[in-house]
Amino acid sequence: MVYAVILAGGTGTRFWPFSRELEPKQLMRLFGSRSLLQGTVARIKNLVPANNIYIVTNKKYFFELKKQVENFNIPFKNIILEPEGKNTAPAIGLCARLIEKNDQDAILVVLPSDHYIKGQHSFKDCIEKAIGCAKNNFLVTVGVKPKSPSTGYGYIKISKRKNGYFLAEKFLEKPEQKKATVFFKDKRFFWNSGIFVWKASVFLEELKARLPELYFNLIAIKSLGDIGKTWHKIKPISVDHGIMEHSKRTVLIPADFFWSDVGSWDALNAVLPKNKEGNVIQADCLNLNSAQVSVFGRGNRLISVVGAKGLIIADTPDALLVCDKNKTQDVRKIVERLKAKHRKEHLAHATEKRPWGAFTVLKTGLGFKVKLVEIEPKKRLSLQRHRRRAEHWIVVSGCAKVSSGKKVKFIRNNQSIYIPIKERHRLENPMRYPLRIVEVQTGNYLEEDDIERLEDDFRR
Amino acid sequence: MVYAVILAGGTGTRFWPFSRELEPKQLMRLFGSRSLLQGTVARIKNLVPANNIYIVTNKKYFFELKKQVENFNIPFKNIILEPEGKNTAPAIGLCARLIEKNDQDAILVVLPSDHYIKGQHSFKDCIEKAIGCAKNNFLVTVGVKPKSPSTGYGYIKISKRKNGYFLAEKFLEKPEQKKATVFFKDKRFFWNSGIFVWKASVFLEELKARLPELYFNLIAIKSLGDIGKTWHKIKPISVDHGIMEHSKRTVLIPADFFWSDVGSWDALNAVLPKNKEGNVIQADCLNLNSAQVSVFGRGNRLISVVGAKGLIIADTPDALLVCDKNKTQDVRKIVERLKAKHRKEHLAHATEKRPWGAFTVLKTGLGFKVKLVEIEPKKRLSLQRHRRRAEHWIVVSGCAKVSSGKKVKFIRNNQSIYIPIKERHRLENPMRYPLRIVEVQTGNYLEEDDIERLEDDFRR
Repeated sequence: MVYAVILAGGTGTRFWPFSRELEPKQLMRLFGSRSLLQGTVARIKNLVPANNIYIVTNKKYFFELKKQVENFNIPFKNIILEPEGKNTAPAIGLCARLIEKNDQDAILVVLPSDHYIKGQHSFKDCIEKAIGCAKNNFLVTVGVKPKSPSTGYGYIKISKRKNGYFLAEKFLEKPEQKKATVFFKDKRFFWNSGIFVWKASVFLEELKARLPELYFNLIAIKSLGDIGKTWHKIKPISVDHGIMEHSKRTVLIPADFFWSDVGSWDALNAVLPKNKEGNVIQADCLNLNSAQVSVFGRGNRLISVVGAKGLIIADTPDALLVCDKNKTQDVRKIVERLKAKHRKEHLAHATEKRPWGAFTVLKTGLGFKVKLVEIEPKKRLSLQRHRRRAEHWIVVSGCAKVSSGKKVKFIRNNQSIYIPIKERHRLENPMRYPLRIVEVQTGNYLEEDDIERLEDDFRR
Repeated sequence: MVYAVILAGGTGTRFWPFSRELEPKQLMRLFGSRSLLQGTVARIKNLVPANNIYIVTNKKYFFELKKQVENFNIPFKNIILEPEGKNTAPAIGLCARLIEKNDQDAILVVLPSDHYIKGQHSFKDCIEKAIGCAKNNFLVTVGVKPKSPSTGYGYIKISKRKNGYFLAEKFLEKPEQKKATVFFKDKRFFWNSGIFVWKASVFLEELKARLPELYFNLIAIKSLGDIGKTWHKIKPISVDHGIMEHSKRTVLIPADFFWSDVGSWDALNAVLPKNKEGNVIQADCLNLNSAQVSVFGRGNRLISVVGAKGLIIADTPDALLVCDKNKTQDVRKIVERLKAKHRKEHLAHATEKRPWGAFTVLKTGLGFKVKLVEIEPKKRLSLQRHRRRAEHWIVVSGCAKVSSGKKVKFIRNNQSIYIPIKERHRLENPMRYPLRIVEVQTGNYLEEDDIERLEDDFRR
């Protein structure tokens, strides 16, 4: 049987300020209405039944990821949660281990969740070819013909051409500019797309031979419940570095679909359609004589650009980025600085997602905080209590079921309720349509950690 | 007696998005804690007693301007309100008329309210010299030695040097670049600072000779109450074009203080201190390898700039400007476009000032609006009624006196009150400290014009 293993544990640094630690690139809607992850799932569903699609991710992404794949009928047990990211070899190894336990002939199609691919048919043909190779116990990589002497990708050097595939002679890390230029001119070099196809059993054999410590840690995992016990012992290592650079049975299938890893704002920009001045405008924008400017707005604010050249502008309610087009690789340094300064703009958006919906802080002032809280149909927050704040709730659409102390009330549009300090309370949306309330908190301490959860549908 | 006439009717286009139609440049704090207007008043107070300082402005700026000059003890009757802007000749003429009626020997020091001047003593000396000249029935202009071949200023060509002043041969409009270069090289040319000194009676004589229609309209104005009856008949014209270009008794006193008209973001930038990369940072900003970049932030948001060069970035809660440094003259075109599109970002800031305080719209959603309302000590809003919205008020600091229907209640911090649709109500701050409330409006129409004022302290 063929299985898909989608790697969705990446962190959100490169598309800051649109991406955040809690909203990494793979969960973002960079193209149209689907996130990159949803695009990846949709693409592989043509080849692999939903029951065989596995997604490995960090546990902090679980609720959002679950929401995003809900409509694809992937069993929730197939969402494998890592307590922390350990790079690709352990993530793939874990899935191989769990799948191979039940299906010794399993073939895995390993897919990054955050790439952009155009050409559904070619993609399908390519993966089918790769599956054919994998049946012959090869470790198959999909290689992309280089379009530029990029220093942003790993390269693969092929040797002999076989029937529809190439023997892969060498896997090379991201090169310096000089080497990249040499590789680009030499027809034997391909970009490493990060798409791999192999038998689970073959991959585990390779792991055993080359990363035995990891192999034995993985073998100790007999069920999902065992992951937590073992994971902290595992050392991070990439599959390229740990396996592909050393294995003797690697082959390459060339991709004849359009591929981009959309690894930076500039890479995103490169695949978006431009107007005749070379601009990309995805915002409420007034532009006067600017060229090669890309404006991305999520800040609900007018962006005006006058006479600018070669810029990326990305605006969100709490953080703005103005970046030279050729410097988008440095965006991760901004995220590092934010971390170092113990700020919060790299962590979550002003609108923070929760398993029951989302909230947006509208204003923080001395002694008060105003939030817009949106609760999805039939969901409820935890039964909770705050030690240091009172809450005023005004329902602005929908209907709320509110437990406060021993009472239960239904609060409708244009009605309000007051929750005193220390009162046990619970907010629920009993309806089939969304509920929105404006919450005004008052008190001398208004942080999210002033919450005592007495009961929770989401086991938080 | 010497009088000051401060021209404060300018519109807010050049410093958009910081300036707005309701917050023009002269009322902005571009340098330190004082607005440009306040700086102008403080400067002239060394020469002219507060009772003799007149300010001409548009009536829409009255409440804010009154607040700004409160501490200078200028009588409120000296704030002359124009129903609409008619350029400088009518504004100066109006003051000349009103002052000369009571003091036939009055000397007027006419000052733009929105310029930047450094060198208090030199300024005082210069104006005193000018007053001396004005006593001899001259029309005196303060001229600035050109620092560049600027096309942004009017020029004055001097002829003979007299004792401490020059005869002014010619007033010239803003020139083309070629001419400006010629003027700059020729020592006989000065920039026109817009600072004028003359006898009220002499100015009125000139008006009578050169702009008789305007003169007779002004003579018809016998008191402040007459302005409204006459103003619509008056044709806009500048004092330079209407008088100075034609008069035979113009002289020039050179300024030996530092002067800038701060006529654009770039001009502001030029007078601000820079760090060693040439950057001006007046914002919560992370900068990575940018140079000659100026960042002005009022948006309460992090601004990160990566590898940019030669930009002005000005951020506010509802509008952002990213502008090439050499294109800041085009900012007014953005304001024109906003007008043409019937948008609102050129009109007022997200925080709108009112005679009783200010409010900020925190969120507008379907069927609701959330505002933070700040009421100054001892002030109150009008007694009012809304036809289509209800209001929930939560006091988050201070204490409110609320009349609602026939009841009057005091609502303290962490208390709330509900004002139903159509209920007469009034909000008052009875205390000596500010009051802040969060207002949640609900209803199907939530615009500011749904207000019926039954009584108002501010005669609106």
